[in-house]
Amino acid sequence: MSDDRRTVAELDERGLLELIFPRLGPDGALVGPGDDAAVVAAPDGRTVLSIDTLVQDQDFRLDWAGGYRSSGFDVGWKCAAQNVSDINAMGAVPTSLVVSLTLPGTTPVGWVEELADGLRAALQELGADRCGVVGGDLGKGPVIVVTAAVTGDLEGRAPVLRSGARPGDIVAVAGTPGRAAAGLALLEKAPDYAALPPALRRLTGLQSRPVPPLAAGPLAARAGVHAMMDISDGLVRDAGRLARAGGVALDLDGALLRDFEAELRPAAELLCADPRNWVLGGGEDHGLLAAFGPESELPEGFHAVGSVQAGAPAVTVDGAVPEVLGWDHFRG
Amino acid sequence: MSDDRRTVAELDERGLLELIFPRLGPDGALVGPGDDAAVVAAPDGRTVLSIDTLVQDQDFRLDWAGGYRSSGFDVGWKCAAQNVSDINAMGAVPTSLVVSLTLPGTTPVGWVEELADGLRAALQELGADRCGVVGGDLGKGPVIVVTAAVTGDLEGRAPVLRSGARPGDIVAVAGTPGRAAAGLALLEKAPDYAALPPALRRLTGLQSRPVPPLAAGPLAARAGVHAMMDISDGLVRDAGRLARAGGVALDLDGALLRDFEAELRPAAELLCADPRNWVLGGGEDHGLLAAFGPESELPEGFHAVGSVQAGAPAVTVDGAVPEVLGWDHFRG
Repeated sequence: MSDDRRTVAELDERGLLELIFPRLGPDGALVGPGDDAAVVAAPDGRTVLSIDTLVQDQDFRLDWAGGYRSSGFDVGWKCAAQNVSDINAMGAVPTSLVVSLTLPGTTPVGWVEELADGLRAALQELGADRCGVVGGDLGKGPVIVVTAAVTGDLEGRAPVLRSGARPGDIVAVAGTPGRAAAGLALLEKAPDYAALPPALRRLTGLQSRPVPPLAAGPLAARAGVHAMMDISDGLVRDAGRLARAGGVALDLDGALLRDFEAELRPAAELLCADPRNWVLGGGEDHGLLAAFGPESELPEGFHAVGSVQAGAPAVTVDGAVPEVLGWDHFRG
Repeated sequence: MSDDRRTVAELDERGLLELIFPRLGPDGALVGPGDDAAVVAAPDGRTVLSIDTLVQDQDFRLDWAGGYRSSGFDVGWKCAAQNVSDINAMGAVPTSLVVSLTLPGTTPVGWVEELADGLRAALQELGADRCGVVGGDLGKGPVIVVTAAVTGDLEGRAPVLRSGARPGDIVAVAGTPGRAAAGLALLEKAPDYAALPPALRRLTGLQSRPVPPLAAGPLAARAGVHAMMDISDGLVRDAGRLARAGGVALDLDGALLRDFEAELRPAAELLCADPRNWVLGGGEDHGLLAAFGPESELPEGFHAVGSVQAGAPAVTVDGAVPEVLGWDHFRG
C-alpha cells in the first residue's frame, strides 16, 4: 500500500486519474489515455476482443477467512492476467487493455495506486510486451468492480477456435491446473494465512496472481493446433465446452493428471481434500486446453492429458464420468 | 418485461447466455460470441477502443422517487448509446460491443432479456449498422453493473482529438445539451412520474435512452473539424477539458445557448429550476462538442455556441465564469 491515506471520495475524478496514469507505464497506442477513446494498431486488419470482470466478494475478497487481504496489486494483476489469457486462447498476442473501475468512496487511494501497479506488473512479467493500458473509466459503486476489455493481434494467423477438435487428436494443457483452486481453498479454509509454509503460500499467490502461459497460445497456433481455449472454470467444465463446440468426446487420462496432483498434496493433506478435485474442477489458473493432431509434436509448455474420441459430446476420465463440475457464476 | 418469472439464480450461466444471445441479433464479427474472444474487422489497420460502465443507483435506478423504474431495456439502450458516443467523438464508426453483466441472483431473467433488447434496439435505431454485440461476460454481484467496451473504425481518417482547438475557431455542438439533465431532475424530483405530460416524459425518456447524434461525428471529421469530444459530464465541464487539451479559452454565447433552453422551460417551471443550469451543467445527452475552423460551414446537425480564444484554459459564458460545474463521479 502506498503512503497516501486519502480515500477516493477526497479526490475528484481528474485527481484520481492523474495519480493512476503515470503508474501504468507506456501504453503503446496510436492514441493513448485522455481522449474519448484510444486508437490501437491492428496490423493485419483484424482485432481480437474480449471482456472480463472481477467483483469484490465474488472473485476476490478484501478479507479472507485466514486473514489474507487481497491487495490492489493482486486485483490489478488478476484483471490483466485473466483478460490477456482470453487473447492467448485465440493464438493471438495482447495489444491493449481498457479498464473500468467501480469503487466505493471509502476505497483508499493507495489501494487504487496498487491496482495500477498490479496491472502494469502483470503485463510486463507475463510477457505482454505490446500491451499497455490505453484508457479507462471511473465510477462509484457499493463494492469494487474491475472490468477490463483487451484487444489482440493474430499476426496474420487464423484465430484458433474451440470447435476444431477431431477424433484421434491429443488433448493437452499448458499451465498447471489445480494450483489456483488449491490456493483458493487455502485462503478460504486454512485458519491462519500468516502461518502457512512458503510452498502453500505460493499456491495462494497463484490464486491471487495467476500466471497464464502467454507464449503457449501463439506457439500452439503456429504448430497448427486444432482447437484451444482458456481453462478458467475448471478442466472438466471447460473440456465439456471444447467437446460440445467440436461435437466430440474427450477422455482424460488419470495417470497423466496425477503429475499435476503431486505439488498439491501438502495443501490437500492440510485441508483433508482430494487434490484431484482441484485439478479437475479448479478454475482461475488460466492455462490452455488444446487439441492437437495425432502426429503433432506438442509445442513447449504443453503436456498431453488425454485424447479426443468420436461420439456424443462428453468428458470422461479413464472412460468414466467424473463427479466434479467446476465453477458456474450463478450456481457457484 | 418478458413473461419469464425466473431469477438469474435459477439458471446457470449457459442457460442465461442461451436466452440472451438470440435477442442480440446479427453480430457482424469475423468470430462472434461463444469463443474465448471475438474477432472484429479493422479494415484500415487501426481500432478505436473505449469502455464505459453503468452502476445501479449511480447511473440508473430501479426505483426513482416519482415511481419510474429503469427497465432492462433502458439500461441496455443507455449502455450502447454512451459507448458508441465515445467512438462518434473520435470521428469514427462503431464496429462492435462486448458487454459484461454483473447481476444480483435475484435479478429477473426478463429484466436481462430486456437489456439485450435495449442493446440491440439502440444500435439499430441510432444507426450503428456495422456494430453488434460480439461477446460478453456474466457474473454475480450485489448490484447491477453493466460495462461495455466498444470498437470503432476510422475509415482511413485521422482520429479527431480533444486537443486541436485554435484561437478563432467556432465552438459548436451536435445534439441538444440539457434534455437528459432535465429528465434526470424530473425523475428525481417530480412527485408522480405517471402524471407527467408527454413533453416532460419525453425528457425523462432522453435521460433513460439518450440519442447521441451518430452521423455527426464522421461528418465533422470529413469536414476537417479541429477538435471534438463527447458531452457526457456537462457542457461547461467538458468544454473545460477541450480548453485544457488545446491550451485555449472557450467563450460560450448566452444568446445561442438560449435556443436549447426553450423546450426545457415547462420542466423548469414545474421544478422551480433554471433551465440554463441544465444546458450548461447537464451530462448524459451524449452530444458532441467541437471546434471548427473560422471559415468552416458547419456540418449538418451542428450549431454554433461560441468561439475559441487565445489565453489560459478557461470556459466563460459571455465573458464571465459560470457557476455551474457538471458531474464528477466521486464528488457527485
